[in-house]
Amino acid sequence: MIHLSLIGIGTGNPDHVTRQGMAAMNAADLILVPLKGEDKADLAGLRLQICRACVTNPATRIETFDLPVRDPATPDYVTRVNDWHDAIAARWEAAIRAHLELGGGPRVALLVWGDPSLYDSTLRIAGRVGLRLPLTLEVIPGITAIQMLCAAHAIPLNDLAAPVTITTGRALRMDGWPDGATTIVVMLDAGGAFRVLDPAELTIWWGAYVGMAEQILRAGPLAQVQDDILATRATARAAHGWIMDIYLIRKT
Amino acid sequence: MIHLSLIGIGTGNPDHVTRQGMAAMNAADLILVPLKGEDKADLAGLRLQICRACVTNPATRIETFDLPVRDPATPDYVTRVNDWHDAIAARWEAAIRAHLELGGGPRVALLVWGDPSLYDSTLRIAGRVGLRLPLTLEVIPGITAIQMLCAAHAIPLNDLAAPVTITTGRALRMDGWPDGATTIVVMLDAGGAFRVLDPAELTIWWGAYVGMAEQILRAGPLAQVQDDILATRATARAAHGWIMDIYLIRKT
Ligand SMILES: C[S@@+](CC[C@H](N)C(=O)[O-])C[C@H]1O[C@@H](n2cnc3c(N)ncnc32)[C@H](O)[C@@H]1O
Ligand SMILES: C[S@@+](CC[C@H](N)C(=O)[O-])C[C@H]1O[C@@H](n2cnc3c(N)ncnc32)[C@H](O)[C@@H]1O
Repeated sequence: MIHLSLIGIGTGNPDHVTRQGMAAMNAADLILVPLKGEDKADLAGLRLQICRACVTNPATRIETFDLPVRDPATPDYVTRVNDWHDAIAARWEAAIRAHLELGGGPRVALLVWGDPSLYDSTLRIAGRVGLRLPLTLEVIPGITAIQMLCAAHAIPLNDLAAPVTITTGRALRMDGWPDGATTIVVMLDAGGAFRVLDPAELTIWWGAYVGMAEQILRAGPLAQVQDDILATRATARAAHGWIMDIYLIRKT
Repeated sequence: MIHLSLIGIGTGNPDHVTRQGMAAMNAADLILVPLKGEDKADLAGLRLQICRACVTNPATRIETFDLPVRDPATPDYVTRVNDWHDAIAARWEAAIRAHLELGGGPRVALLVWGDPSLYDSTLRIAGRVGLRLPLTLEVIPGITAIQMLCAAHAIPLNDLAAPVTITTGRALRMDGWPDGATTIVVMLDAGGAFRVLDPAELTIWWGAYVGMAEQILRAGPLAQVQDDILATRATARAAHGWIMDIYLIRKT
C-alpha cells in the first residue's frame, strides 16, 4: 500500500511552506517533481528549489520527471484536459513502480503549487493513479495565490460579511461579470480578461509573481490602471519568459 | 514607528503555521492574543497554545487582552460591527502604548485564525489603529478553513476550470443559491442555512473543527445527509460548548 501525500507548497516562496508540509516532505521516501508545465520553464526549477530548501532527510529521494504536453489536435477542451491527465497519471505510475522495484519505501510525495484544491489537477490525477495502484491519499494545504495577493496588498478578500466569486479569465471573457457578485478574484487569465468589463465603479488589485522575489503589484480604479497593468504584464512576461498573475476586482 | 504583523495561524493545528509565520512570531517583541471571541471560550486558549507551540524566543512577550463584546442594543448590523471594531482598536492601542511605555520594542504581532483576508476583522481594526499610532503593516497568510475542509475530504474546491462562490450562512438564508453558481462554500453559518435550498441534485461536504483533533466530517447527497449533519452539529456543539463548521455544496 502506497501512502501518497499531495503537499501544497505556496506560490514560490519556501517560507510559505507549513510545518506540516516540511514534515511530510522529510517523511517521504520519494518526492516526485514534474519538469515541464505548460512552457513555464522556470517553475519546475522553482519547485525543485523549494523542495531542496525544505528537505533535510538524506533518505528522501527527489526525482524529476517530464510532464507530457496537451495535444492541441484534440479540439474539445474537457477531452483534451482529460487525455492529458491520463498521460500524466501514467508517468506517475511508472515513476512510482520504478522506485518500488528498486526497493524504495512506500511514502511518495508530490509538491503542488499553491494549494492542491485550487485550480489544480493533481487531485484528479491522483484519483486515476489510485485506480491502478493501491493508495492511501493525504492532502496537505498550502498558501494560495489568492491569499498571497490579499496579503501583499494588505486587503481583505471579502467586503464585511459579503460573498466572493473566484473565477477564471476564460469564464470572465465568456460570461462577463458574475450575476450578483460584488467581489471577484480572477485566476488563469492569459491576459487582460478584465477588458470585457465596463470599468466604471470597479477597483482592481493586481499582482504578478506574488510572494516571489519578482513580485509586482498594482491597484486603483480599473479605468485608471488597466493600461498600465497590461503594459507591465507584457514587459514582465517578455523579461522572464513566463508570468503568473491574479487580480481581485470590487464594485465600489 | 511600530511594525505590526498580522499572522495567519491556520484553523487550530499548530502544524499549519508556515515558516514565515514562525519567523514573524519569534521576531516579535510583543504578541497580542485576544481572550474572548464571541463566547467561544476554548478558542482564546487555542490561539495561546498555538502561540506557545511556535515561540521559542525568550525575549518575545505574549500578552492576552480581553476583547470587548458587541452591543446587542445597536439594531443595525453594520453599525454594531463598526462600533465593536472601534472598541477593539482602542484595546489594541492601549496594549501597545502600555508595552512601549515599559520600554518594549516596536515589533508587535497579532495572531489571526485562518487567514487574515477571509471573513476576519483584524485588517479593518489595524486600519483604525493606524489612524492613531504610526504603523507599518505586514500580513502573513495562513491556511483557511476552506483549504482544510477540501484537504480533509481530499476534494478540489472547483469543478474543472469552473467558478466558486464563497458566502455566509446569513447571505444564503437571505438570497438562496447564488445566481449562476455551481459550487458554493458556506462559512459563518449559525446552523443549517442549507435548509433553504432544494436538496435535489446537490452534494455537500461538511466539516466541523477542521484541522483540529476534534475534526468531524460528513459528505453525501444533501437530501440524504442533511439531518445527520444537523444532529451531529447539535451534539458536538453541546459537548464542546462551541462549534465552527464549514461546508461546500456542488450541483451535480
Ligand atoms: C493552475 S492555477 C494554480 C493555483 C494554485 N493551486 C494556488 O493555490 O494558487 C495557476 C494560476 O494561479 C495563479 N497564480 C499562481 N501562482 C501565482 C503567483 N506566484 N503570482 C500570481 N498568480 C499566481 C495565476 O492566476 C495562475 O494562472
Ligand atoms: C470569522 S470566520 C474566520 C475565517 C478564518 N479567517 C479562515 O481563514 O478560515 C469563522 C468561520 O470560519 C470557519 N472556520 C474557521 N475555523 C474552522 C474550523 N476549524 N472548522 C470549521 N470551520 C472553521 C467557520 O465557518 C466559521 O464560522
